[in-house]
Amino acid sequence: MKLTRCIPLIAATIVLPQIGFAQDAVEPAAPGFDEIGPYIMTTLLFLIGGFLVMWMAAGFAMLEAGLVRSKNVTMQLTKNIALFGIAAILYYIVGFNLMYPGDGWTIPGYLGALFVPTALEPVGLDAASADLGYASVGSDFFFQLMFCATTASIVSGTLAERIKLWPFLIFVVVLTGFIYPIEASWQWGGGWLSEMGFSDFAGSTIVHATGGFAALAGALVLGPRIGRYRDGRSVPMPGSNLALATLGTFILWLGWFGFNGGSQLAAGTVGDIADVSRIFANTNTAAAGGAVAALILTQVLYRKPDLTMTLNGALAGLVSITAEPLMPTLGGATLIGAIGGVIVVFTVPLLDKMKIDDVVGAIPVHLVAGIWGTLAVPLSNADTSFVTQIIGVVSIGVFVFVVSLIVWFIINAIMGLRASEEDEIAGLDVSEMGMEAYPEFSKS
Amino acid sequence: MKLTRCIPLIAATIVLPQIGFAQDAVEPAAPGFDEIGPYIMTTLLFLIGGFLVMWMAAGFAMLEAGLVRSKNVTMQLTKNIALFGIAAILYYIVGFNLMYPGDGWTIPGYLGALFVPTALEPVGLDAASADLGYASVGSDFFFQLMFCATTASIVSGTLAERIKLWPFLIFVVVLTGFIYPIEASWQWGGGWLSEMGFSDFAGSTIVHATGGFAALAGALVLGPRIGRYRDGRSVPMPGSNLALATLGTFILWLGWFGFNGGSQLAAGTVGDIADVSRIFANTNTAAAGGAVAALILTQVLYRKPDLTMTLNGALAGLVSITAEPLMPTLGGATLIGAIGGVIVVFTVPLLDKMKIDDVVGAIPVHLVAGIWGTLAVPLSNADTSFVTQIIGVVSIGVFVFVVSLIVWFIINAIMGLRASEEDEIAGLDVSEMGMEAYPEFSKS
Amino acid sequence: MKLTRCIPLIAATIVLPQIGFAQDAVEPAAPGFDEIGPYIMTTLLFLIGGFLVMWMAAGFAMLEAGLVRSKNVTMQLTKNIALFGIAAILYYIVGFNLMYPGDGWTIPGYLGALFVPTALEPVGLDAASADLGYASVGSDFFFQLMFCATTASIVSGTLAERIKLWPFLIFVVVLTGFIYPIEASWQWGGGWLSEMGFSDFAGSTIVHATGGFAALAGALVLGPRIGRYRDGRSVPMPGSNLALATLGTFILWLGWFGFNGGSQLAAGTVGDIADVSRIFANTNTAAAGGAVAALILTQVLYRKPDLTMTLNGALAGLVSITAEPLMPTLGGATLIGAIGGVIVVFTVPLLDKMKIDDVVGAIPVHLVAGIWGTLAVPLSNADTSFVTQIIGVVSIGVFVFVVSLIVWFIINAIMGLRASEEDEIAGLDVSEMGMEAYPEFSKS
Repeated sequence: MKLTRCIPLIAATIVLPQIGFAQDAVEPAAPGFDEIGPYIMTTLLFLIGGFLVMWMAAGFAMLEAGLVRSKNVTMQLTKNIALFGIAAILYYIVGFNLMYPGDGWTIPGYLGALFVPTALEPVGLDAASADLGYASVGSDFFFQLMFCATTASIVSGTLAERIKLWPFLIFVVVLTGFIYPIEASWQWGGGWLSEMGFSDFAGSTIVHATGGFAALAGALVLGPRIGRYRDGRSVPMPGSNLALATLGTFILWLGWFGFNGGSQLAAGTVGDIADVSRIFANTNTAAAGGAVAALILTQVLYRKPDLTMTLNGALAGLVSITAEPLMPTLGGATLIGAIGGVIVVFTVPLLDKMKIDDVVGAIPVHLVAGIWGTLAVPLSNADTSFVTQIIGVVSIGVFVFVVSLIVWFIINAIMGLRASEEDEIAGLDVSEMGMEAYPEFSKS
Repeated sequence: MKLTRCIPLIAATIVLPQIGFAQDAVEPAAPGFDEIGPYIMTTLLFLIGGFLVMWMAAGFAMLEAGLVRSKNVTMQLTKNIALFGIAAILYYIVGFNLMYPGDGWTIPGYLGALFVPTALEPVGLDAASADLGYASVGSDFFFQLMFCATTASIVSGTLAERIKLWPFLIFVVVLTGFIYPIEASWQWGGGWLSEMGFSDFAGSTIVHATGGFAALAGALVLGPRIGRYRDGRSVPMPGSNLALATLGTFILWLGWFGFNGGSQLAAGTVGDIADVSRIFANTNTAAAGGAVAALILTQVLYRKPDLTMTLNGALAGLVSITAEPLMPTLGGATLIGAIGGVIVVFTVPLLDKMKIDDVVGAIPVHLVAGIWGTLAVPLSNADTSFVTQIIGVVSIGVFVFVVSLIVWFIINAIMGLRASEEDEIAGLDVSEMGMEAYPEFSKS
Repeated sequence: MKLTRCIPLIAATIVLPQIGFAQDAVEPAAPGFDEIGPYIMTTLLFLIGGFLVMWMAAGFAMLEAGLVRSKNVTMQLTKNIALFGIAAILYYIVGFNLMYPGDGWTIPGYLGALFVPTALEPVGLDAASADLGYASVGSDFFFQLMFCATTASIVSGTLAERIKLWPFLIFVVVLTGFIYPIEASWQWGGGWLSEMGFSDFAGSTIVHATGGFAALAGALVLGPRIGRYRDGRSVPMPGSNLALATLGTFILWLGWFGFNGGSQLAAGTVGDIADVSRIFANTNTAAAGGAVAALILTQVLYRKPDLTMTLNGALAGLVSITAEPLMPTLGGATLIGAIGGVIVVFTVPLLDKMKIDDVVGAIPVHLVAGIWGTLAVPLSNADTSFVTQIIGVVSIGVFVFVVSLIVWFIINAIMGLRASEEDEIAGLDVSEMGMEAYPEFSKS
């Protein structure tokens, strides 16, 4: 790549010699690395964090493909790759500017952001035009987009095996273009929740509980799978591929380092990069706590250790620490995660008692553990008030749940959410997709 | 790692105190971080980009293993890990120096590069000996090697389910040691295409169409699988594991951030790192555009959304944006990717009409969308001429296709490319490998 | 994330303006990026290296899930996620401080470290309190923890398909909390092996052979699987999913860049980042050498290329280069890796002759190739003595093997290591876990 190489080389030869005598230069010299280092490091943090969170989309796809029955695997895979594509486009067209309206916090200004697609900074951005105290806008957009997509990934698991493709994807349009950006702007866009002192570092509530509330609303409108609850008991419908489910969990665990670590939003000072390190260590130990707690608890309760509960325990540990991965000690983070794991083990059967059919356990993991994580913030962060945390959870919860419910109702009324009974029994892969995921393997 | 730790510590204690009074030192002082920061950042970009592109080898392996029938999965996996190993060795022995002959651009100098294996810089490279305007040679080699391996990965998918292992691997030797380095040197080695103004940022043509041309030549020599075309119609042979195929697509999507982002070849200035950010955002949205376009188009055309087309649509979006991931706006990148997705949906049946049997769709994705991406560069990059782009595509295409064709013919004449009819019907796993990929699962 | 954003912004506005006139400031100014750059880069190296090595846990899980029979897949997945969780907790509670006792190298000081759980640095660490010649303690802990977990991952593969869950996990507690930290402290904690001049850059012996010795002890106590050796011959028990096994190998290959590259322990000078680049390139080519050597050798020996041998060949190449990934040339690294691949092909049948049943081949890959790699260090590193290398391998080997043997005996005596004959034949998934990994696919 010689020729292309020349461009940075030439740029370097222009920039570097000026560093030594910058003070003497008549016209403003390009800033030295001393001045731009923090900008570069934070941008790099967003890029690394962003690709790790993007990888979580694959994690959700594998987790869900592994936990549905084989007759619905193609559908679940399609939903996952489609929702990620849609989230990327919607967040670009409306979401990002709606979430970060800048100075446009009057109602007309805010609504005006609706019509402004995201624009990246110019190619070869000049250092003088850059916000050297922050990072590249493109990297920030890339990073934030992945959070938006995660919210949609959460919903697809709960509603699996019965919802049709297009109604689901239409909901994803509303969720990623509007619902998520609006509630997220309350906090991360500088809105009223942030002014009130609400604290949700990387989104236990803003991302995970939000996905969970939207999923819960959908599950209520949609109803349980055929045969899932019979004679007052829940009938297990085991996942078709636990290797994929485990792979998905490991992918999510890995991606979460980007999710929480990147949310430090800075990496150019000793304090910031050391904080990112704390966050990595705490995130990991919370997942470990959740996994081990769920493993031990299922052994004690059911006399058999339960793999899917252990996987969900790890994920619940991750969700729990997401609201505050920085302040706790390693021991505190382990406990916060472990309680997340315990919550999953108790909430999964509870949902079944309420006949809310959540195929992959996304509501216990993302909604319930997300609330727990948000309410646990004051335990380690003295600047946060328990009451404010409750206000934040309730207001986001009510908004997301009610709006989602309305949207689900409307879509249902217009085109029907649910596959026909016949199609559901045959499996959505044959009926809706015309393509089996494992066509050569006979089903028992 | 205390002891080993001491080395950097000692180095730091030698270097750091000199920073403050570097001007006063009598002998030349070690350069401060201000001077070496850009070198370190670009090296890091290559290392991160390199491991992401290495990960694409796993993506191709999973994509292809998922799209072949279960009786050929072990073979396909073997080809993928073997081709990556061979590419690594060949690119080290001849490829890298052949591709970057440095000042040896006379014919004898160029051919002389044939006999010089890649040598890394000395251990503990002194800053005074380093090219501070660029990056570590080792990191550059590592990064470039992965592009060479990608070219070979593309070929293996098209020719699956009928080509024998060793003839394929011998072709890989020629492709990764000679064909790819030679054509790539025309542009990235500072050769005539680069002097002419051809523009192919990360290799829509130089990597992807090249792999596609080599695959096309192989497919023509090899012929279609037994029973693939019958009575003038193509008989579908569905992939055995769409979960793996989807996983492979997500892996490739992730790896592409390194593929395109690393091709900025610099990360040590505000302009460069902001450009890398642009590239990440554009790469992602192009993939999203390709996936969503293919999904919608298959729904419209076939009344059913098609998962494999959606996966290939995402990949085609990625290939399309690879020739110019920097200059387009987010909207432009989305459209360029979407057109890539549309191309796939129309090209796959076209190949079938021509009875060219491309098992995984690599020719539509990498060759056709690669050409599209290369020709689309002038849309966003005013410095690039449409005519030059055509000259680049045609010259690389003719060279790669003709040489590949000759090599395939020679290998075929000497040892036969194709498994026997009996072996192909039994599946290459049993006949050639003696090992099934899923030995316990009965085939329907 | 506006509000949270403000914190780094404010920090930046406080720090940045001081850079220019740091010498004039009356009170000590915050150090400029010139001074903190190396600290930030090394911390980042640990974080990236750490998440890559964490990803290896998924690699082991997939490799092992693919190489066991389908009736034991759920169990193998459970072991892998559980052992990672346990390693994370144990290394936090005792391992890290036991391994790095700091100045407490007297016996009481060393044992005192037993009771000190790892504490992270304070939030928002002040640059004046940071060890600017090294890196954030949190990032170091995160990175080192992953090495400890890797040791446990190695053991689980060998003992698969017959050991019960809880006895295995109890051994993991001892291994990750005590055995690994103690022997690792001999070298990396500044102990007697490091003082003697033993050289093991990233742990061919300290991590891989250690895992292998612990596995060997377990295999001897446990005995082979039922029916594995019959009439003096070994009965093949083919893995159930070679796609997963291949995926696992690619994951491990990727993660190894972090394993070896991060072990440079510094990234803030030209020499260090160039060395990390050398390590990446050498690590990759050693894996390639191992894979290609095993592929060719199995073709020659058995007339059929063997995928699982090729996968293990790649892994053996990686293990072989781990003791010294920096000093060899690319050619030397390729050869060192290739010999590792050859070792695997010859050692696997040797173990079978000794009726040591190693389900995934972890002993050939991690123990035998680990010893080879350690003894090969003097070939490229003149500062290392062959005799010292032997002393290191033998002393670690004896310690790990004997202590492991004792621990396995004790656990066996108390609760029994092995599943009942009936349970083993039925498969551990049904008998111990009550959950099949692929419940819908009929077994042939």
